[in-house]
Amino acid sequence: MTEEAIKSNIRTVRDWPKAGINFRDVTTLFENPDCYHSVIKQLAEWAKSREYDSIAGIDARGFILSGALAYELKLPLVLVRKKGKLPYSTIFEDYELEYGTATVETHETELIRDHKVLVVDDLLATGGTALAAIRLMRRLGASGVDFAAIIDLVELPGRQVLKNAGVEAFTVCGFNETE
Amino acid sequence: MTEEAIKSNIRTVRDWPKAGINFRDVTTLFENPDCYHSVIKQLAEWAKSREYDSIAGIDARGFILSGALAYELKLPLVLVRKKGKLPYSTIFEDYELEYGTATVETHETELIRDHKVLVVDDLLATGGTALAAIRLMRRLGASGVDFAAIIDLVELPGRQVLKNAGVEAFTVCGFNETE
Repeated sequence: MTEEAIKSNIRTVRDWPKAGINFRDVTTLFENPDCYHSVIKQLAEWAKSREYDSIAGIDARGFILSGALAYELKLPLVLVRKKGKLPYSTIFEDYELEYGTATVETHETELIRDHKVLVVDDLLATGGTALAAIRLMRRLGASGVDFAAIIDLVELPGRQVLKNAGVEAFTVCGFNETE
Repeated sequence: MTEEAIKSNIRTVRDWPKAGINFRDVTTLFENPDCYHSVIKQLAEWAKSREYDSIAGIDARGFILSGALAYELKLPLVLVRKKGKLPYSTIFEDYELEYGTATVETHETELIRDHKVLVVDDLLATGGTALAAIRLMRRLGASGVDFAAIIDLVELPGRQVLKNAGVEAFTVCGFNETE
């Protein structure tokens, strides 16, 4: 499925969560099985050639994609969650939001040591959450970490932030602010 | 993979989130690709014979399983989220917790009308969240709704609650309180 066809399955909700924001809503894409299948296949094709050892999914929409991708690629899946959701020993990373900070957390696990890890979310915007998740994987001993998402908000600095951190990023489609 | 082998991949965390609770932690299952694959295959096999039209995933661990299952079965996926996370027009259902109430929400969509829907989560306990999600699907016009999860906490009333509501429930494994 082409980038334009995939984009046509993503709903733009104006002024959400606040005035001036064009929210890109992937729930409509998930409702179209052909489109969802195509997105997972594109992510899987990209990932296969890079020979990842594990997938890391970001809470919560990233769980959908990472769950399907770990299944398709038959790779281990680790979860990067909002703080306070994981029951066992964890490590966490704070990151900055427009106002204040947020925290992501993952279980301490030996699984990731020397693994090449692909971190998966639905959307790349400022790169804050992505980079915090990537730092967690590096602290767990990952030998390499990359990032994949459905959407790149191309006017926001996410891709450059990841590039500066030595992270390769794959996205299925891009949106300009005015779209 | 046998029920016992799958259970051996689920970590029990004692006294979490509070004293006296044995929390069944599926993150260790997700870290084992053979086990995760087997679980999704078992859910898919069960679902195939029942010819569902859509999958509904419950926030957040249910997103992982529903994302993989919707992909494997090539079915539409709708999200049942905690309140305030969905950007478009929604309907919601309150349900009771041990202390207080919680709310789940889904987008208003015409997709579900006359669909046979499978609601998916990681765990069946009291059945409160499951039943609230099922009520949402019925309000969207579903012709039938069933439920599937990895774990059944067999001493809790979830299975009976769902049976009383006319819902068939499939789970991959069961835990007694003392295990």
